[in-house]
Amino acid sequence: MSELMSKARELDAADELSGLRAKFVLDEAVYLDGNSLGALPAAVPDRMQDVVRRQWGSLRIRSWDESGWWTAPERIGDRIAPLVGAAPGQIVVGDSTSVNVFKALVAAVRMAAGEGSVAGEGSDGRDEIVVDATTFPTDGYIAESAARMTGCTLRPVVPAEVPGVLSDRTAAVLLNHVDYRTGRLHDLPGLTAAVHAAGAVAVWDLCHSAGALPVGLDEHGVDLAVGCTYKYLNGGPGSPAYLYVRRELQDRFDSPLPGWNSHTEPFGMRPDYEPATGAPRGRVGTPDILSMLALEAALEVWDDVPIDAVRAKSLALTDFFLECVAAYVPEGRVESLTPAAHAERGSQVALRCEDAGDVMKRLVESGVVGDFRRPDVLRFGFTPLYVGFADVERAARVLAEVVS
Amino acid sequence: MSELMSKARELDAADELSGLRAKFVLDEAVYLDGNSLGALPAAVPDRMQDVVRRQWGSLRIRSWDESGWWTAPERIGDRIAPLVGAAPGQIVVGDSTSVNVFKALVAAVRMAAGEGSVAGEGSDGRDEIVVDATTFPTDGYIAESAARMTGCTLRPVVPAEVPGVLSDRTAAVLLNHVDYRTGRLHDLPGLTAAVHAAGAVAVWDLCHSAGALPVGLDEHGVDLAVGCTYKYLNGGPGSPAYLYVRRELQDRFDSPLPGWNSHTEPFGMRPDYEPATGAPRGRVGTPDILSMLALEAALEVWDDVPIDAVRAKSLALTDFFLECVAAYVPEGRVESLTPAAHAERGSQVALRCEDAGDVMKRLVESGVVGDFRRPDVLRFGFTPLYVGFADVERAARVLAEVVS
Repeated sequence: MSELMSKARELDAADELSGLRAKFVLDEAVYLDGNSLGALPAAVPDRMQDVVRRQWGSLRIRSWDESGWWTAPERIGDRIAPLVGAAPGQIVVGDSTSVNVFKALVAAVRMAAGEGSVAGEGSDGRDEIVVDATTFPTDGYIAESAARMTGCTLRPVVPAEVPGVLSDRTAAVLLNHVDYRTGRLHDLPGLTAAVHAAGAVAVWDLCHSAGALPVGLDEHGVDLAVGCTYKYLNGGPGSPAYLYVRRELQDRFDSPLPGWNSHTEPFGMRPDYEPATGAPRGRVGTPDILSMLALEAALEVWDDVPIDAVRAKSLALTDFFLECVAAYVPEGRVESLTPAAHAERGSQVALRCEDAGDVMKRLVESGVVGDFRRPDVLRFGFTPLYVGFADVERAARVLAEVVS
Repeated sequence: MSELMSKARELDAADELSGLRAKFVLDEAVYLDGNSLGALPAAVPDRMQDVVRRQWGSLRIRSWDESGWWTAPERIGDRIAPLVGAAPGQIVVGDSTSVNVFKALVAAVRMAAGEGSVAGEGSDGRDEIVVDATTFPTDGYIAESAARMTGCTLRPVVPAEVPGVLSDRTAAVLLNHVDYRTGRLHDLPGLTAAVHAAGAVAVWDLCHSAGALPVGLDEHGVDLAVGCTYKYLNGGPGSPAYLYVRRELQDRFDSPLPGWNSHTEPFGMRPDYEPATGAPRGRVGTPDILSMLALEAALEVWDDVPIDAVRAKSLALTDFFLECVAAYVPEGRVESLTPAAHAERGSQVALRCEDAGDVMKRLVESGVVGDFRRPDVLRFGFTPLYVGFADVERAARVLAEVVS
């Protein structure tokens, strides 16, 4: 047994989270794609049968009350809240990440335009939306639409340059906590403070950080945030996203999608819109119950799991992966795009590799599942809840075989 | 046995659709709430187990290709298409009805503002959105937001008055095919023609008609349409809605929610948005696969079911219900809000009843499930796929007992 294999064994033996793996359905493959689609939590299939057969099939319409369907968006939001450092009552689940980015960004511009402003979107001299130029594309596309529809100008800049472009023209800033491609962790506290110092509203996309590392939304005064639930939160394919609106801003949250679910009296069927108070104001239409209740079951794996322990293991996993890659893979064959500094690293490692598409195909055939991002990136996500150190060592070893 | 019971028996014996009831999970209750939440199709539970256990749990990320997840929105749209009289390639499934109303209405205003217009929203003198004043409220709320964000004025009028307010200022008109409260069927061909004659864009909400009666989207030249799938289409609680964009208008569909799923090359991760051609342009973010594939299984009950036969049975059911109510219920105790004329009737009967809330509670306790709409409406939906004439007779008989 090699030195690194022994080390993996020791690290696994000392891993206080290792028991969580049993809460997932996994096989002999090394699954390093949980940053794209989280593995299936073992509790989900039976829960879905109950939701489908009993709640829908037998109780039918009564389930909106009796099975708690109606309040699911807020209830499940409150289950996500501790994972991102939010007190209860500020997160609501529903719609896709893209739709939530639209809600958040338009609402942010309206907040920046000042209290009570309705027609004054993009007014008050604050007519710029700053967006991460390296963002996952959907955020950029939606930001462009939000800018167009609020009379703002869109200003794409790399996160490091954000502080330099903030001004009294900045209405809102949309940033990613972790870069989807490189795995770089951005400075959420520092950038949020800079946005606030400029008098603008900070919107964070947590897709690649929630469930992998502490976010501290309340602590750092984030204004609005969105995230998906099918990566590190394991909610299932296309499970609904969530929206965080800081408590102090909820009364000023002026949604561009004021559906009947966000009305203060949804069943009053009143022709005039009067928004609900609190997190439900972020709702829109009828929630997609099947996807949502699968997510609720999936979130139960987090009971009593401290997010700091998750972060510690995540860093140990990525450290160890980089160590194994350096030891096994021929010099110059791959190059890490992920920062070495812990403070700048999310829970993935992105390796540049000339023939990455081909290499990933062969990795998958050899039982190591990551993903390929064009043109030349091998992306490996490390989900601390179910990835172990022996997995990591094996992944690096197979990678070395494949590229040699 | 009473005369009406005998008649019910004869009607059931002659019903060519009666065999479809076996494709649903039903119990001894008379379920007349399928216009709120359709009953569970029997094929859904096993399909969901396969989707959860094998597609997600075992194939995981590979299912986006291998299980057809990625193309589900268009594929399932094409399954809905024949039910609403649309040729393939014009319907895409995803998001809630409210979100789709927003997409459709903003896109309609942009179409009305003329080819290639970008900044000119609400320009060209077309700066009014006409909306059904009796609409299910979410359409009104969303229309108000769409108007605000495109610089238009919102003009709510009852459908009968729509032709009278159309002018060269009208950009778009949002109408309901069937009124959610009264069950009144509006004149889709005539109103669409009137909207077109005024040079405006017609948007129809099909929530209470699709699956219950022929819609004829292509035949009548409807421009855009939206609908939910959890009523007469039995897709499950909060199953995703759909969006129809007439083929000739697809290239001019300029979405306010241009998420990465609507990009011509979604995995190109390109910073610039270039919309896909065809129905996928109506997509936004990652589709909610569990809810969507439950819907796909649910739609299989429609194989070889002619929508004209569904309509004929629907009218026979509501005719017979009104007949039984007239025979059984004491004069003056309830009053039908649903038009007697077939051409003006959807697939529900709404009865005004002073103590409707109480009455519905006792009906449900007695095994007859409809719903209550404030302040004084008993609403009964008749789903031709699984409601029979004996159900109808029993419902009227129990209603008579409850109100006497």
